Amino acid sequence: MKRMDLLSELVLENQTKLVLFVIDGLGGLPGKDGKTELEAAATPNLDKLAAKSETGLLQMIEAGITPGSGPGHLALFGYDPLEFRIGRGILEALGVGAHVAPQEVCARGNFATWGPGDVVLDRRAGRISTEKNKELISFLSENIKEIRGVKVRLYPGEEHRFVVVFSGDNLSEEVEDADPQKNGLPMRWANPSSARGNLMATIANEFIKKVRELLAKEEHANGCLLRGFSQAPHMPMLSQLYKIKPVAIATYPMYKGIARLVGMDVVDVVDREHSLEGLFEALSSQWDKYDFFYVHVKYADSYGEDGNYDAKREIIERFDSLLPKALELKPDVLVVTGDHSTPSRLKSHSWHPVPVLLSSPFVRPSGGAAFGERTCASGTLGIMPAYHLMGLMLAHGLRLAKYGA
Amino acid sequence: MKRMDLLSELVLENQTKLVLFVIDGLGGLPGKDGKTELEAAATPNLDKLAAKSETGLLQMIEAGITPGSGPGHLALFGYDPLEFRIGRGILEALGVGAHVAPQEVCARGNFATWGPGDVVLDRRAGRISTEKNKELISFLSENIKEIRGVKVRLYPGEEHRFVVVFSGDNLSEEVEDADPQKNGLPMRWANPSSARGNLMATIANEFIKKVRELLAKEEHANGCLLRGFSQAPHMPMLSQLYKIKPVAIATYPMYKGIARLVGMDVVDVVDREHSLEGLFEALSSQWDKYDFFYVHVKYADSYGEDGNYDAKREIIERFDSLLPKALELKPDVLVVTGDHSTPSRLKSHSWHPVPVLLSSPFVRPSGGAAFGERTCASGTLGIMPAYHLMGLMLAHGLRLAKYGA
Repeated sequence: MKRMDLLSELVLENQTKLVLFVIDGLGGLPGKDGKTELEAAATPNLDKLAAKSETGLLQMIEAGITPGSGPGHLALFGYDPLEFRIGRGILEALGVGAHVAPQEVCARGNFATWGPGDVVLDRRAGRISTEKNKELISFLSENIKEIRGVKVRLYPGEEHRFVVVFSGDNLSEEVEDADPQKNGLPMRWANPSSARGNLMATIANEFIKKVRELLAKEEHANGCLLRGFSQAPHMPMLSQLYKIKPVAIATYPMYKGIARLVGMDVVDVVDREHSLEGLFEALSSQWDKYDFFYVHVKYADSYGEDGNYDAKREIIERFDSLLPKALELKPDVLVVTGDHSTPSRLKSHSWHPVPVLLSSPFVRPSGGAAFGERTCASGTLGIMPAYHLMGLMLAHGLRLAKYGA
Repeated sequence: MKRMDLLSELVLENQTKLVLFVIDGLGGLPGKDGKTELEAAATPNLDKLAAKSETGLLQMIEAGITPGSGPGHLALFGYDPLEFRIGRGILEALGVGAHVAPQEVCARGNFATWGPGDVVLDRRAGRISTEKNKELISFLSENIKEIRGVKVRLYPGEEHRFVVVFSGDNLSEEVEDADPQKNGLPMRWANPSSARGNLMATIANEFIKKVRELLAKEEHANGCLLRGFSQAPHMPMLSQLYKIKPVAIATYPMYKGIARLVGMDVVDVVDREHSLEGLFEALSSQWDKYDFFYVHVKYADSYGEDGNYDAKREIIERFDSLLPKALELKPDVLVVTGDHSTPSRLKSHSWHPVPVLLSSPFVRPSGGAAFGERTCASGTLGIMPAYHLMGLMLAHGLRLAKYGA
């Protein structure tokens, strides 16, 4: 029996409030002083909480497997990440506010500068402004409403990026990128990667030609590329699965996107100068409206990817200093973890399991003196599959009935 | 490959003696002094044994899932509790000594007081005495041997409760309860929950009418209800799976029932005043006849459900004081664990994993100073699925051949 079906069968509704803090890329590796970013960070609040919590390590996918942000988050939301797979295109589409239904295919677009002979001179069109992008998308939307009966919807992104959603029968994501990959090469048109992708490839190429015609007089953005053709996966919604009313508090499009994919409401948050204060303010302001709160803290991952050990450590310290604001709300269950590790030493996501802390009135505290990778390795939760966490949060919220008599 | 099939393929027969002590509801949560019932209990014998044993935590079902007694025990006996599911009706039937074969359907019966217009006045017939119950069942058994070719067997239970087993072709458990659920309402007759249940529902209603006719002159028990129609699951027997000769030493019907279901012999034990001495006496007296001994200690769970922290602690202490009697028998493998947690703080079963101790000549001792939830969390067994325990016991009994060349 699948865990998700089991939880659905047992789930109860009540008034408990569950909070899931995801510090993106939280896990790390020892730096020069032998401590990870998290271990080196001065985190008095997390340490105090950890001593009263169950702690452990989350195996995001399986031993040795490095998760992308998509699978990492799906696992945290209770979806077996090896069963549910989503393309990056879908995530970005959702992130800019597009809705992608089962019959639809989306792709990531780049405005680009085309030269004679369909040579792509600049795959990013000189990084036009987001304002200019919005103007162009508005103009194109008026002039390309459908192609051969397939409806076209366009969404502006940041700078040169946009998203296009194609809606019609017999479309498939099995199409290779329409992108020469390097500046100065002739356009590489969309090709189907299987016969199922024939129609989508044809439509995509006609779309690109129309954009080229309509924008011929533009100085920079006189053409486009399309990448990452993707269909929406069939995801059961969190609210139906677990009788919760979930909300996402996040700043970056991708994380809002994945939250929408699993049926969360999304709150727009302005986070001035990486202060993280906007996240905690949103948590307070939404407190009465929801019962499951996913709060996403981006910059630990960004600095990890930059290889900036100290900046990653400081983001963790900033989070720690704000944590009391969340505790004041008296959540019934509070979890602090990450969606994957991003050791600044590796400058990338990594396969290392991720520290987790779960606080509720019904814990067997690990009693460790601090919140860190090594203390968590001997915590009372042990090393557990990340996609088991959601059920554990429901259990601690007394939201699961007994299995069997 | 399923674990059960793997074990069956590798299993060897020898003379080793394996003992599984199940302290019902053993796991707990910290009380006022920050210690669980088990951690607070003075258990010199368990502590001494734990230091020489492998210890760990058993995940009975999966993280966050609270097991009923049935699934908890099935897991301890090596059955994946998500694959093998048994209804409460079956457990209770087995508990009163009924045997339910694959072609049969059992139901829990209540003697009830019926009034005019088939209104059920008292769903428990004034809780008639168990003696009276036995008289009525004896009378009914003589007068209802079969209905439309379906054989009927009756078993008295405690007070107003009995069990009926129907034996014939085309019977199905897919029948809703024949029970108005509340006193003062008209009888609610059995209805099939699917077409497969048609025959069983008809037979059940005829049975209820016959009981009503036969007992019409009774003051209290002048009718009955039937609930929890259940068929026996198809369970492979322990003796066939693992070449062991198992016996159950238990006092409560449900635990005897589940032991019968997996093919154990059952010893009747009288446990005067919760002394637990009867259990240890039975273990001694049966020692030469069997090689696998399941010993069930009920009251830790009962007191946990009462919210009685101290009484639960005392039962554990009493068990500890008797443990040397088991050690004197020199079992080759001895396990002490529980079928689930019952923290007195929650007054119910809970999802928390259960401490386990495994003693044999071939252990890597954890070396912990005491037997408790937190020491077990860092024991050499780690946190393991409960249904893996049986194979581990067989291994320590040197009863499993090597896998592969």
